[in-house]
Amino acid sequence: MTRRPQVLVIGDSADYPDRNDTARTLGRFIAEQGWVLISGGRGGVMAAASRGAQEGCGISVAILPSDRMEEANPWADIVIPTGIGFARNYTNTLAADAVVSIGGGTGTLCEIAYAWQANKPIIACSFTGGWSAELAGRTLDYRRTDAIMDAHSSEEAMQYLRTLLQPRQPQ
Amino acid sequence: MTRRPQVLVIGDSADYPDRNDTARTLGRFIAEQGWVLISGGRGGVMAAASRGAQEGCGISVAILPSDRMEEANPWADIVIPTGIGFARNYTNTLAADAVVSIGGGTGTLCEIAYAWQANKPIIACSFTGGWSAELAGRTLDYRRTDAIMDAHSSEEAMQYLRTLLQPRQPQ
Amino acid sequence: MTRRPQVLVIGDSADYPDRNDTARTLGRFIAEQGWVLISGGRGGVMAAASRGAQEGCGISVAILPSDRMEEANPWADIVIPTGIGFARNYTNTLAADAVVSIGGGTGTLCEIAYAWQANKPIIACSFTGGWSAELAGRTLDYRRTDAIMDAHSSEEAMQYLRTLLQPRQPQ
Amino acid sequence: MTRRPQVLVIGDSADYPDRNDTARTLGRFIAEQGWVLISGGRGGVMAAASRGAQEGCGISVAILPSDRMEEANPWADIVIPTGIGFARNYTNTLAADAVVSIGGGTGTLCEIAYAWQANKPIIACSFTGGWSAELAGRTLDYRRTDAIMDAHSSEEAMQYLRTLLQPRQPQ
Repeated sequence: MTRRPQVLVIGDSADYPDRNDTARTLGRFIAEQGWVLISGGRGGVMAAASRGAQEGCGISVAILPSDRMEEANPWADIVIPTGIGFARNYTNTLAADAVVSIGGGTGTLCEIAYAWQANKPIIACSFTGGWSAELAGRTLDYRRTDAIMDAHSSEEAMQYLRTLLQPRQPQ
Repeated sequence: MTRRPQVLVIGDSADYPDRNDTARTLGRFIAEQGWVLISGGRGGVMAAASRGAQEGCGISVAILPSDRMEEANPWADIVIPTGIGFARNYTNTLAADAVVSIGGGTGTLCEIAYAWQANKPIIACSFTGGWSAELAGRTLDYRRTDAIMDAHSSEEAMQYLRTLLQPRQPQ
Repeated sequence: MTRRPQVLVIGDSADYPDRNDTARTLGRFIAEQGWVLISGGRGGVMAAASRGAQEGCGISVAILPSDRMEEANPWADIVIPTGIGFARNYTNTLAADAVVSIGGGTGTLCEIAYAWQANKPIIACSFTGGWSAELAGRTLDYRRTDAIMDAHSSEEAMQYLRTLLQPRQPQ
Repeated sequence: MTRRPQVLVIGDSADYPDRNDTARTLGRFIAEQGWVLISGGRGGVMAAASRGAQEGCGISVAILPSDRMEEANPWADIVIPTGIGFARNYTNTLAADAVVSIGGGTGTLCEIAYAWQANKPIIACSFTGGWSAELAGRTLDYRRTDAIMDAHSSEEAMQYLRTLLQPRQPQ
């Protein structure tokens, strides 16, 4: 198999400077490990994570709700306009080997719920507020016995990712 | 327009007797008002609500994740096997004029998040536990200024529905 | 099981008077048998079939591409705004016990292809032109050994449906 | 914008040696131009095209119907398990700047219909048989005035792609 680990970063589509900074830092880290960044492809956390991935010379994939490639932020390398509206939240989480959540409203809440059901490892950046803060450390229902990982800093989120996924050797 | 109001009932697919009783009572009430019951078409709360709708001589619609009509519970009148997996949660909420939530795990949580984004009125039966209890009375994010309605009994849920929707005259 | 047979009528969303007449006739017939009419819920053949179903005092279900109930034609009884764009063509065919095709462009072509893959019986009204005329009587690929049924008149389409499905006794 | 052109290759999931050879040749060509190969991620033409892309040191994206990454063929670099069944045909075509069709049954027919509606350039390899041969050179409905491009050889398909898309300079 040639596939690299795929990390989904979820969070607000609106711009919160602190949350965007975290997303950009993590996007760059993900790229530097040789992993693929998956995101919802729009603004806010999604754009910042993609921008970070580009700075880290990695690949970012934008999985969009709309049917138009032009909806993607300018840092997306590969654009998948699903055309299925916010049903694409489901696809996003299925494309993840691990999920990192930053801040977030009900879109993020929806994706965390899907990720839980699909048995994906979830790291919630509790220091960024939003639903990430509220759900970090929690067990969401009877389906799993583990809890959402609570990252108190970007570094702790990176450490969780390193534990979950294998860095990729340069080729 | 000939369309009747459509009420989505969401909740656990596993069987909890108390939650099922509430679902059956509300399904019957919905049918008796001349409204259409929408559900996810599977077991637990979904089956109980459909059963209640049948007892009330109404119509229940099952919007299934799978591609097989046989997945529906035996009380569904109209079966829509979406074939899109749990992306059907999105479709479910879009088909609702109002949403009633009973108990619930992360599937229910996902649907509440979608319903919030789609600006649908949401009534959470807090007396049934699960995510319904946790989210009743809350405002989920900046998108709306209202709160999820908190029903402390089946009667209060019915009263909320009566206020939101028009009963339909016999024809 | 209480479920009635569900018949999907597909065809042009633009208005062709002859095709609309056929759709309205068949929609009425479907309703009079006690079956449920499924359609894509928009204009042209979809609206005419729903109108016929209403005249036959039956139930018509509109499975829409958009996320807005208002997109449905005025004769739809139950409206399912899937929100998944033209991916809803897939859901449409899965909701069918039998498919009737009238005229049709590439939307209809897409649905015939899906219906073939899902192993649904397909009746193409060859007298209405479009892709229905072109594919009537054909075997589309190796997946099936049967052919698309070729209806040379509305009456022949009705006869095919009667053979495929059980009329429902009045209750 | 950093996005590279994305080329969707569609065709049989079953193995036909001649069709697979064409897919592998075109997959390699697409990669060598610096374009991204999009495919349905499964066997037959999809696997062969991805294999060719890998031989050309390019990137191939697998957009799968199922919810399981393991469904992808071993040459896929990035895997998107949509979880929406064959509704993913819609997403596939929306992710394309150009579509190349090789052989094909009703799955391919469905995707050609979607690509037509989405106004994507379509190149059908008529020398490979299947629905590609049948639809090459045709105008499918009133929505467009152009025709599906008829490629009589792999070289002609490449020439069409060169005309449609910009080769990408090495960075």
